[in-house]
Amino acid sequence: MSYDKKFMALKGLPPMPQVPKGANFILFRKTGKLLTLSGSGPLRGAVIPAQYKGKLGKEVSTKQGYNAARLTVMNLLLITRAAIRTLDKVDYILNVDGTVNCTSDFTDQPSVINGCSDLLVEIFGNNGHHTRSAIGAPSLAFDISVEISMSLVIK
Amino acid sequence: MSYDKKFMALKGLPPMPQVPKGANFILFRKTGKLLTLSGSGPLRGAVIPAQYKGKLGKEVSTKQGYNAARLTVMNLLLITRAAIRTLDKVDYILNVDGTVNCTSDFTDQPSVINGCSDLLVEIFGNNGHHTRSAIGAPSLAFDISVEISMSLVIK
Amino acid sequence: MSYDKKFMALKGLPPMPQVPKGANFILFRKTGKLLTLSGSGPLRGAVIPAQYKGKLGKEVSTKQGYNAARLTVMNLLLITRAAIRTLDKVDYILNVDGTVNCTSDFTDQPSVINGCSDLLVEIFGNNGHHTRSAIGAPSLAFDISVEISMSLVIK
Repeated sequence: MSYDKKFMALKGLPPMPQVPKGANFILFRKTGKLLTLSGSGPLRGAVIPAQYKGKLGKEVSTKQGYNAARLTVMNLLLITRAAIRTLDKVDYILNVDGTVNCTSDFTDQPSVINGCSDLLVEIFGNNGHHTRSAIGAPSLAFDISVEISMSLVIK
Repeated sequence: MSYDKKFMALKGLPPMPQVPKGANFILFRKTGKLLTLSGSGPLRGAVIPAQYKGKLGKEVSTKQGYNAARLTVMNLLLITRAAIRTLDKVDYILNVDGTVNCTSDFTDQPSVINGCSDLLVEIFGNNGHHTRSAIGAPSLAFDISVEISMSLVIK
Repeated sequence: MSYDKKFMALKGLPPMPQVPKGANFILFRKTGKLLTLSGSGPLRGAVIPAQYKGKLGKEVSTKQGYNAARLTVMNLLLITRAAIRTLDKVDYILNVDGTVNCTSDFTDQPSVINGCSDLLVEIFGNNGHHTRSAIGAPSLAFDISVEISMSLVIK
């Protein structure tokens, strides 16, 4: 099946994310074959589901964090689709920078960001493999549990 | 008015930032048409104004953080100018990664980093629009309230 | 002496790092002449030496953090070598993003990440100079004291 069909058949796809009103940044930039995306979070449109708000190590479990990262990359792929019309034009995922809202004793950032990495490989196979970083933050915008930035190469 | 003239006419421009003595990193790298800049902060030369030191959610207000981000991107644009002689050679801003020194209950990183984004659009119009991330950190170098990295594409 | 010989003659080189079993990310991606690496830490193979675990400002001294950053970039250069066979094919280091696991009152991230920057210049001379950021995090994966991402340009 094509990347785009596989993606659009996923359960739980959120609506297309919007840049906040009056914001002076944009959701994507194309530079030749490089597509750079703004950091995104576990949003359903303008709504952050309650279970994806807060800190890992406190009110958000690792499993919930994993699902938050999965929802975040769904948003990133919806933005990719808006940028290049169809995911079938993706050559490969380049890099993922994951930041986890967490307490100072939470040390399992990788298991959280795996929610993003696993979905990328589910959709793109070997072309979904990417370099990544996964760090902690004491707090994130709107108390989202995860923020992920991504860049990818298009055909 | 040209980008460069608009920028040089700004009130409150700091002096050209310097790389710390003995440092083994540099302020910019050109790779073809991509210009990559080192993370910078709210400096006036070697001095950090007292109101831009410390944490959002504690001693630094959101308005002060906004102004710290504005001063930071002034430094980044001075470095850009040193790299390419004039801001008129900027094609567009590519990406901004903003990190906010904050308490664990501060969740308005975007309003702080807007101080950077707004200035970029003030100078470059639509070409100042950029992708960005905005995360929190428990502490930053020399207790600066904001650190911002930026990359841009030159003509 | 060649870059590669200088590097392989370093004391304290760790074994080649491995991507964790079952992980859906990769250690490097080549995009034309750009080599992007995943964030790495102060590992000796699968082992994190005890003195490189924990937070700066608490159980890890600045000197230990410096050495952790030095060990981290050794891992990054081993991965570079696996990607392009020999460090002699490195044109120059592009960017380093350093994250320091630290308390909220630790403000000397630069002195820690210097452990990485100094080694890059020790090996590559002027071509080891790079742009960089250095931020704090309240916690990192497996309690490593430092995580560093790097990108470089190959000949």
